[in-house]
Amino acid sequence: MDNLREVRKIDHIRQTLALEDGPQDNGFSHVHLIHNALPALNVEEIDLSLSFLGKKVNSPLLINAITGGHQSVTEINRRLAQVAARKGLALAVGSQSAGLRNPELWSSYSVVRENHPDGVIIANVNADTTVTEALRAIEVIEADGIQVHLNVAQELAMKEGDRHFRDWIKRISDLVQHSPVPVIVKEVGFGISKEVAFELLDRGVTYIDVGGAGGTNFVSIELRRQSKENRGFESWGIPTAMTLGEVIWAYQQKGIPFHEGAVIATGGIRNGWEAAKALAMGATAFGMAGSILKRLLLSVVPSQEERLIPQSSDLNGRIEAVEDYIDDFEQELLQAMVLTGSQNLQDLHGKPCIFTGRVKEWFEQREIVIQRNR
Amino acid sequence: MDNLREVRKIDHIRQTLALEDGPQDNGFSHVHLIHNALPALNVEEIDLSLSFLGKKVNSPLLINAITGGHQSVTEINRRLAQVAARKGLALAVGSQSAGLRNPELWSSYSVVRENHPDGVIIANVNADTTVTEALRAIEVIEADGIQVHLNVAQELAMKEGDRHFRDWIKRISDLVQHSPVPVIVKEVGFGISKEVAFELLDRGVTYIDVGGAGGTNFVSIELRRQSKENRGFESWGIPTAMTLGEVIWAYQQKGIPFHEGAVIATGGIRNGWEAAKALAMGATAFGMAGSILKRLLLSVVPSQEERLIPQSSDLNGRIEAVEDYIDDFEQELLQAMVLTGSQNLQDLHGKPCIFTGRVKEWFEQREIVIQRNR
Amino acid sequence: MDNLREVRKIDHIRQTLALEDGPQDNGFSHVHLIHNALPALNVEEIDLSLSFLGKKVNSPLLINAITGGHQSVTEINRRLAQVAARKGLALAVGSQSAGLRNPELWSSYSVVRENHPDGVIIANVNADTTVTEALRAIEVIEADGIQVHLNVAQELAMKEGDRHFRDWIKRISDLVQHSPVPVIVKEVGFGISKEVAFELLDRGVTYIDVGGAGGTNFVSIELRRQSKENRGFESWGIPTAMTLGEVIWAYQQKGIPFHEGAVIATGGIRNGWEAAKALAMGATAFGMAGSILKRLLLSVVPSQEERLIPQSSDLNGRIEAVEDYIDDFEQELLQAMVLTGSQNLQDLHGKPCIFTGRVKEWFEQREIVIQRNR
Amino acid sequence: MDNLREVRKIDHIRQTLALEDGPQDNGFSHVHLIHNALPALNVEEIDLSLSFLGKKVNSPLLINAITGGHQSVTEINRRLAQVAARKGLALAVGSQSAGLRNPELWSSYSVVRENHPDGVIIANVNADTTVTEALRAIEVIEADGIQVHLNVAQELAMKEGDRHFRDWIKRISDLVQHSPVPVIVKEVGFGISKEVAFELLDRGVTYIDVGGAGGTNFVSIELRRQSKENRGFESWGIPTAMTLGEVIWAYQQKGIPFHEGAVIATGGIRNGWEAAKALAMGATAFGMAGSILKRLLLSVVPSQEERLIPQSSDLNGRIEAVEDYIDDFEQELLQAMVLTGSQNLQDLHGKPCIFTGRVKEWFEQREIVIQRNR
Ligand SMILES: Cc1cc2nc3c(=O)[nH]c(=O)nc-3n(C[C@H](O)[C@H](O)[C@H](O)COP(=O)(O)O)c2cc1C
Ligand SMILES: Cc1cc2nc3c(=O)[nH]c(=O)nc-3n(C[C@H](O)[C@H](O)[C@H](O)COP(=O)(O)O)c2cc1C
Ligand SMILES: Cc1cc2nc3c(=O)[nH]c(=O)nc-3n(C[C@H](O)[C@H](O)[C@H](O)COP(=O)(O)O)c2cc1C
Ligand SMILES: Cc1cc2nc3c(=O)[nH]c(=O)nc-3n(C[C@H](O)[C@H](O)[C@H](O)COP(=O)(O)O)c2cc1C
Repeated sequence: MDNLREVRKIDHIRQTLALEDGPQDNGFSHVHLIHNALPALNVEEIDLSLSFLGKKVNSPLLINAITGGHQSVTEINRRLAQVAARKGLALAVGSQSAGLRNPELWSSYSVVRENHPDGVIIANVNADTTVTEALRAIEVIEADGIQVHLNVAQELAMKEGDRHFRDWIKRISDLVQHSPVPVIVKEVGFGISKEVAFELLDRGVTYIDVGGAGGTNFVSIELRRQSKENRGFESWGIPTAMTLGEVIWAYQQKGIPFHEGAVIATGGIRNGWEAAKALAMGATAFGMAGSILKRLLLSVVPSQEERLIPQSSDLNGRIEAVEDYIDDFEQELLQAMVLTGSQNLQDLHGKPCIFTGRVKEWFEQREIVIQRNR
Repeated sequence: MDNLREVRKIDHIRQTLALEDGPQDNGFSHVHLIHNALPALNVEEIDLSLSFLGKKVNSPLLINAITGGHQSVTEINRRLAQVAARKGLALAVGSQSAGLRNPELWSSYSVVRENHPDGVIIANVNADTTVTEALRAIEVIEADGIQVHLNVAQELAMKEGDRHFRDWIKRISDLVQHSPVPVIVKEVGFGISKEVAFELLDRGVTYIDVGGAGGTNFVSIELRRQSKENRGFESWGIPTAMTLGEVIWAYQQKGIPFHEGAVIATGGIRNGWEAAKALAMGATAFGMAGSILKRLLLSVVPSQEERLIPQSSDLNGRIEAVEDYIDDFEQELLQAMVLTGSQNLQDLHGKPCIFTGRVKEWFEQREIVIQRNR
Repeated sequence: MDNLREVRKIDHIRQTLALEDGPQDNGFSHVHLIHNALPALNVEEIDLSLSFLGKKVNSPLLINAITGGHQSVTEINRRLAQVAARKGLALAVGSQSAGLRNPELWSSYSVVRENHPDGVIIANVNADTTVTEALRAIEVIEADGIQVHLNVAQELAMKEGDRHFRDWIKRISDLVQHSPVPVIVKEVGFGISKEVAFELLDRGVTYIDVGGAGGTNFVSIELRRQSKENRGFESWGIPTAMTLGEVIWAYQQKGIPFHEGAVIATGGIRNGWEAAKALAMGATAFGMAGSILKRLLLSVVPSQEERLIPQSSDLNGRIEAVEDYIDDFEQELLQAMVLTGSQNLQDLHGKPCIFTGRVKEWFEQREIVIQRNR
Repeated sequence: MDNLREVRKIDHIRQTLALEDGPQDNGFSHVHLIHNALPALNVEEIDLSLSFLGKKVNSPLLINAITGGHQSVTEINRRLAQVAARKGLALAVGSQSAGLRNPELWSSYSVVRENHPDGVIIANVNADTTVTEALRAIEVIEADGIQVHLNVAQELAMKEGDRHFRDWIKRISDLVQHSPVPVIVKEVGFGISKEVAFELLDRGVTYIDVGGAGGTNFVSIELRRQSKENRGFESWGIPTAMTLGEVIWAYQQKGIPFHEGAVIATGGIRNGWEAAKALAMGATAFGMAGSILKRLLLSVVPSQEERLIPQSSDLNGRIEAVEDYIDDFEQELLQAMVLTGSQNLQDLHGKPCIFTGRVKEWFEQREIVIQRNR
């Protein structure tokens, strides 16, 4: 019989498939790149690659933390790793707490390293993980970096959720000091304010995944698991475009230059045009989870009633759908780079980009001024 | 046979049940709290309580003035008092004018003190009540404070309404000087402008219940009693978020520190998320009336045609519905406090909070700048 | 057989009844009066009256220029004059050009003076009328003032319209110098810009009726007469709230104090709440035409196909509908005065009033700052 | 058998007829001309003509580049030239690349000069055309100017599109130096930013056709040819009102006076009211393509399935529809000139004109201030 934590993993996947993004939108419709009618470049010269966590990745698209910790999700992780390997992308595993509690489940994570032996693999733990546990989580998958996820809103929405947050910042500081690989602090969908970013940067964290609102919503997921709804609660959080501005501004205030800090934009990014806006604003990379999972599983998952996850054989045909999705995404990003006259990501970050409507109002009220490279 | 004033009490309840909030919205969708992904607290340490009118209440939720003055509403007041007692909340009675004119009706008010013997009970009179009358209103329910309600718009909408407002301010000044308990000046749903707030503060009033537009609408109620509609008239008034800014700004201009003045936010506050915004802006407490009454009476009131109020027995099951509603409310408020990293109400008041859209425009045009604690 | 000009008069009435206001709105939804919860006044002390064109009128509501110049509209003018007389209101006749060309038609205008012997009656001519003609127009109805209407947009929309506008300003200057009564320059629904207002004030004009967009639309009327539509053309013009700001600002720049200049707000003003906003902004009076005509004629006019105007007998019952409409209007205005704490119109003009949305943007872009009395 | 490039020409026409403008709107609903109630002019004095590319044209309406390069479109070009001749308008031919590759196709272009012998005819080449080729393109139609079209977005949307843009600017510089006639750099629907405008002006280009988003969308056209859709890609580009501001601002910064530089506004301009706004902002002329083509071909083109273009005989009746459309357009422009008090285009450019909503935000964020003549 599955224990509670393991069943929850499967419920999360089920609910992700059943839910739409939102209800807030990610804010990028109010961020505008400026068309360059005369880009001084040839398309084949464009370079989407970057150095990320010490290795080269082919593009700034990160397949973000999704799952692990249950035998039936091993197959999902294997497929994601195969895609990441074929495309040369970085990949994060889902929370490794289950593995830390039950070593029999480690294989559901290590499958990722087996299938993406030379790539960037990122460990994932929650914020009350001890240094010893975190080191174990890294070791098991030979991780190149470790994500610490912040998910207070999700915990509150869970009946069985954690209620103790006081020591999180201390745990993060400890991990920053003892981790052999970079620590990425990551929200799961409610954003990082400039105040929190300042605090993290003060503690020596240099990688922040903003994890803003507008995509997968873990309050909605947890409430639906209890057959509840709460419009106010589900609308909580800083939309991705806004939190990205908050975090970038904190980096700029601290004087951390673009190429040293890594700001990752995650949260409802759904096409290469939005990704390009995030990168132009100053993100180093961007992550996606929910929409990739939907490509992988939709149309093969059995009816909503059952808790089962599809068999390996069912997924054979789906890996191509995910690859097509990523191809489209990178294609759009490349087109956006051409159309802004950007030869590489550093270039893109220097291109004009403006804010209107709610995003402009947010930045004004929060006294955030995004400096561009030039 | 009921006299006019008494029948009106019952009509008000009927119309409240029949009407929706609005047509203006309360403005809080343009007030934004900022998510704190790393709150340095544990949930059990959070304290919703406050000292209010000299007693401790368990939360800043005030069950605001609703009824009294007719035998058939005694049962409603008894139930509200029972809820307030069980939850440790403050409670205001409805206007005591009927009682002042007909002492036989006092029991419909005093039932409140009987059922909430140690709690905060607030008397309620209209603005042309004499000091002697007001003292009597306080005495009858051993009130801890007295609300003077301002309801010019309602009076104008009534055929039989008052048309003399010149002496109200003088009456209030007199009461402030002679009342043994604090005087709360309270609008019933059209808001208090900064100009009026300045005038009240100059006269020594320190408690203001802003009573803004966006919830129960007494112009609509009075017009519907006459089978009339008037979009312009019903849209009159300062929405709650805006009037809250007006009054807080007046307090700040007068140099009254947060913990001394009591600004109560009432008017269409319908969930704990909105309440948290009001408290973060600087409200000491918030009030509700219409939505509580609906929880208590809807589904048990007989058909719209009759003027009867449900029997005591009908309400047995409803008291739980009201308690659940209040539980949800306090739960949401607590969640908002966690998610902004606020351990108590004083803390919440120091948290970042921004204004967009119509609220921002309003404050700019009215030259209102809300200072936060920090 | 009717001549062209006379048939047109009847077409105008027909089309007014068939058309809705707009397509632009008058802008007043972005003008906000501020609720005064403590008005220091009693309702019976409120005074809606003003001195207008040398006589006292009971309220600032002007029944603006509608018709005349055709036997079959005499009945309409008689009724309007009767209403004006009973209510003590000012009344303008429709354009007197027809009368100037055909003296047999004078009775369709003079009926107004007969039925409102002591009241304010305003003559109405177009902008290429000579001084001699204008003096005749005044004389025939013993007018207290004379409106010169500016209607370039309407002329352009008419096949048979005037195409010569160069001398209008000269004619107006001449009339200002020779007219025994004040000259009111009046747009018919496309507004007066600050530039035009400056020019008029420089020529000695002191009465301006802003006639903004948002109500009766004479481009729509003329196009429909030709069974045409043109969204761009019909959307031409400065909305009433904006043109009112333009003209008031010009008065203020010229240093003309409130009580000397007369700014009349006309154009889609449809209830007393809107009228109050116009008066608070600085209008001396406000005019209405289309909605009054609809009250008078709707439900009694025969089918759209015929060019006939209702017989006298048909109108017997309608005069009451017009009076009720005016009563409601004045009642709403009075309520707005109470709710802003204004004892008279001068007071109302000093009350806080703010601009949001498109009106705020307009004033900012046009560098218009409306000074209030205080 | 048609080659690829030639078939494409016909596909473009087909798709233009099938598609609507957009999805972005051209932005002109946020540009406002100010009504002049007292224009000091007579209609017959108004002059729509201008000197353009050394010749006099009757109005600033340019029939912009559409087609050529395929026998079956010769008829279209003949008709457009006949209209231009009758109306005294400038006319640009479609891209002459096909002709440069296959001289048999020259007649499909030269038909234009034959039918508009004394008028302004503009050659059209793409940005990688050599000077020699360009001189040939000019010669064949005895062109008065030559457009170099920039269409990066379109190339990217085509499977077979160009992917080399690095040398475009060099080619343009060369052409500017060697062309016997003025060079007009022209976007095809995605706009010219101020940065690109600066670069062009620095290279000696003085004619820019802004070609903004909001009308014919060549990304949509190319994607539909492949039965694809992509909301993000199709929403790319600077809307016409915005790009017009960008380019005019660049001219102003460079100190190029109004009468020397020629800024042409193209992109979804669909009536004379919008054209007037563009001209008031500072455009010298405005172009149209899609809507003219629709007038010419709609209702005569055979069913969507076939690749055929209508026979000459089918078009006999259509030329009148195009002329009526142009008449309406010029009529509206003339009306807008009267209503702003503008006697000629220079005048119109000095008239007040304001920006609201998204256009205002755009200009503020881009630090663009449009100086008016006065
Ligand atoms: C089914 C599912 C499970 C997830 N589990 C984790 C997790 O264990 N740890 C974590 O840091 N984030 C987790 N996430 C969050 C994602 O990494 C990502 O931050 C979030 O989904 C927002 O991205 P999206 O809008 O593209 O889905 C999960 C997301 C999904 C959809
Ligand atoms: C049925 C009913 C009766 C009320 N009677 C009074 C009253 O007697 N005195 C008073 O000050 N407010 C009275 N109120 C106003 C409320 O106290 C409160 O200010 C108002 O309803 C706005 O809050 P809400 O939007 O949460 O209902 C009454 C409200 C309701 C719904
Ligand atoms: C049928 C009709 C005829 C009108 N005739 C005249 C006229 O002859 N002279 C004039 O100055 N205004 C005339 N007007 C314009 C009105 O006086 C007024 O300026 C305009 O209708 C805007 O007000 P409203 O929106 O309240 O109708 C006429 C209006 C209507 C509806
Ligand atoms: C069918 C079609 C073909 C076009 N071909 C060309 C071309 O060959 N060269 C060019 O510079 N522009 C070309 N254009 C673009 C137009 O000149 C114009 O810039 C664009 O359509 C925007 O104007 P509109 O919105 O009024 O259509 C073409 C447009 C259409 C509709």
